[in-house]
Formats: sequence, structure tokens, C-alpha cells
Amino acid sequence: MTYCIGLNLEEGLLFASDSRTNAGVDDVRRAGKMRVFAIDGDRVIVTLSAGNLSVTQNALNLLEHRANHGDGVGLYKAQSMFEVATLVGDAMREIRKRDEPYLRDRGIDASASFIVGGQVKGEPPRLFLVYLEGNFIESNPDTPWFQIGEIKFGKPILDRVVTPQSSLEEATKCALVSFDSTMRSNLSVGPPIDLLLYRRDSLQVSQRLRLEDDDAYLNQVRAHWNDSLRNALQTLPSPAWLPAGPA
Amino acid sequence: MTYCIGLNLEEGLLFASDSRTNAGVDDVRRAGKMRVFAIDGDRVIVTLSAGNLSVTQNALNLLEHRANHGDGVGLYKAQSMFEVATLVGDAMREIRKRDEPYLRDRGIDASASFIVGGQVKGEPPRLFLVYLEGNFIESNPDTPWFQIGEIKFGKPILDRVVTPQSSLEEATKCALVSFDSTMRSNLSVGPPIDLLLYRRDSLQVSQRLRLEDDDAYLNQVRAHWNDSLRNALQTLPSPAWLPAGPA
Repeated sequence: MTYCIGLNLEEGLLFASDSRTNAGVDDVRRAGKMRVFAIDGDRVIVTLSAGNLSVTQNALNLLEHRANHGDGVGLYKAQSMFEVATLVGDAMREIRKRDEPYLRDRGIDASASFIVGGQVKGEPPRLFLVYLEGNFIESNPDTPWFQIGEIKFGKPILDRVVTPQSSLEEATKCALVSFDSTMRSNLSVGPPIDLLLYRRDSLQVSQRLRLEDDDAYLNQVRAHWNDSLRNALQTLPSPAWLPAGPA
Repeated sequence: MTYCIGLNLEEGLLFASDSRTNAGVDDVRRAGKMRVFAIDGDRVIVTLSAGNLSVTQNALNLLEHRANHGDGVGLYKAQSMFEVATLVGDAMREIRKRDEPYLRDRGIDASASFIVGGQVKGEPPRLFLVYLEGNFIESNPDTPWFQIGEIKFGKPILDRVVTPQSSLEEATKCALVSFDSTMRSNLSVGPPIDLLLYRRDSLQVSQRLRLEDDDAYLNQVRAHWNDSLRNALQTLPSPAWLPAGPA
């Protein structure tokens, strides 16, 4: 499995992804799910990927190859993030078309999905979710974020807290709590966590880092969150209808 | 969908279930998922059910009919909760055997699962999870609770907080938070919430009630939890590596 989040906030974009991949519980590896395609001052494009690793990697390899060696519109020439999301969906469809019949013969799922976000000079930061089928949707102020992979465990905290007005700082903390909830419940989502912050109109990556499992701040998040939730339950008044404890 | 929780704590048992059932988004109804079979001073048996409503209802109808009119070992004569869980699994298998071929012809999923818990005089309170196939497992101190239905959204809070030493009061509050997180994220889980508390060795239901969507206490839980989570994020120190905001 995988867990990735992308947020499109007024301050900028935030991306986070786990690094666990497996072909069965007896074949677990590390593989980052985040790729960055950037030209300082012109564009920052970030992809997060979930699903079959050979499909996602090779779709991105294809995009990179064409961006560097192709004649047509590639990631570095696209005039909008809409064009970028189209390129990602098309590349994924192309790889699936090539590989899926062989995978299906062996009962292997070739599906894959992407979060694609960034800013191309001349337009605001944008964020897209590219579905398994290669079609895609864009974020909007009502739902300024997308998740892919194991989305359910970490969704409630995002639902409750994130708005387009959330600061990148608040969103970063919220994303790490969301990752911690997910990693506790699904072993196939695992550290390190890749984080990337992009400040609106900067046209360069503001911050990119990798948090290992024993990262001091990640441990602080875990401890603080556990204490806070316990405290929140303790300070929640008991219902009037709750019977008294045993005599 | 459905969401049900059963907890087996040192103080006793707690059961909670939602009341939404649907045959498509254009056919949404209310249907409680909790059934109680009790003889005061002798036994309290509680079932929570998820899955195909005709299968779960009729498995329980069959159990009830046999308990009241049968000659064999029924719910009111079973000598242990192990026997009770076996009866539930067998009844579900029987109904599936009868109905599943007709449902499958129409592409309808006939799967169903149960949480079965309670206490039969002479043994401690016990809690079981009856799988789709009719086999079952029992709770243990490492995992003193089971969920069925839409389990993921509401799992992190249980993971973080519940231990066998949790009080019924704490567990009740935690269960309601878990339900609130789930109902926010999945429309097919909905109020009212049925709650049942059973105190160890009392051999009678301690408390049973139904919380409607506009219940004052449920609203208090929602408001308190939102405030507490926001506050928990605000009081979480920012990481040292987070870049300063825009100048």
C-alpha cells in the first residue's frame, strides 16, 4: 500500500508521502513515492504515486525521458498544470496499455493513481488527482486536498482541521498526525515520510526533507498527539445518562 | 454500510451501532443493527450486525425462533458464549446457503458479519467476531475490541486510547468520537446511534439508549472534539526545520 497527501492552501502547496512498497508481506522494500520536476523561477511540479510500482515508476520515467529528449510538449514545456496532469494521465495509460495484459495473466493488479501539483509561471498553484483510468479532477476550496492509497485512517483529522486558510505550518503538523494514524493501523504504510513545502509564487521548492521512523520531531508528534487525545477524552464531560460505576 | 463496535473491558462490555441501511443512495432507511437476548440473572447476549440486511435479520430471526420454539440448544440454553457464537455463525451460514444463489444471480452481495458478546452465568463476559464465512475469533487483552462495517475512519482513536483497563465511561466517550469521525466521512453510516453498556457479572443490561443526530450530548462531543483537536495541533511545537513564513 501507500499513503500520500497533497494540499492546496492559500500559502502554498504541501506534499507528503510514505516510502513502503511490498510484493507480499515477505517482500517489503523502501521506495519513495515523490518525484519533483522543477526549473527554478519557472515551474515546480511534484508527483505522488500509489498503486503498482512498475506502472507508476515507468509512467514517470516516460515523462522524464520525453521531457529531456522529446520534441513535443513535455513536463518542462507545458504551459499549465492542466497540461501537466494530462501528460501524467496519458503516460500512465500508455504504460498500462503496454504492461497490463501481461500482469493480468498472472492476476496482478496494474492500477495506479497520482496526485500532481505545482505551479507553472503565469498561473496560480494547482493540485490534481489522476485516477486509475487516467482522467483527473482538480482541488477546490471546498476540498483543498487529495489523498491516495490507504486514505481512510488519516482522513478524519484532515476533515476536521484543514481549510484553504490553514497555514503551511499547521498543515504540516496535521499531515504528520494523519501519517502517524495511518502507519499505526496499516503496516504496509511506512516511514520514512517525504515532505515537500512549496510557497505560493516562489517558483522554487521551499523545503524538502525526509523523516525517518526515529526522527525526534516525529516522536514528539506521536507523544503529544497521544497525550492530547487522552486529555481531550478526559475533559469531555460524561453524559448525564451514564450510570454510576460499580458500588 | 454500517458501523458497529464491541469492547470487552475489565469493567464490562460496551456495544455501539449505527442505524443506516441502504439499497443504493436513493433507497436509504433506518434499521438498528443491535439485538439483545437476555434472561435477567442468567445471561445477556448482544449481537451487532453488518452486511446484507436480509441475511443478518433472518439469521437472527432463525436464532430467535429456535430459541423460543426449538428443542435443541438455543440462545437461551447455550452454556457458554462460545456456543452462542457457534450458533450465530451456523445460522448465518444456513441463511446464506438458502438465499445466496438467488442473490448472486442478480449480482447482489450476500455477505454479512457479526459482533457477538455477552455473559452467560458461570463464565466471564466474552466478545466474538463472526466473519463472513461463519468462523469466528474471540477478543483478547491485546485487542479488547472489534469493529465491523466501515471500520477505518474510526479506528485510530480506538487504537490510541482503549485498553482493557479503560473505564466504561471512557470507552463510551471514545466510541462516540469514533462514530462521529466515521459518520463525517461515510454518508452510509448514520444516526441514531444505539448504545448498550453491560457491567461485568451483573447479568442484566446496565444501560441501553439511542442517540438521535440532534442529541445534545452528541453535539457536545462533536464541538469538544473539534476544539480539542485544533488546540492539540496549535500546542504541538513546530519543527525546527520548518522555514519561516513569507516575509
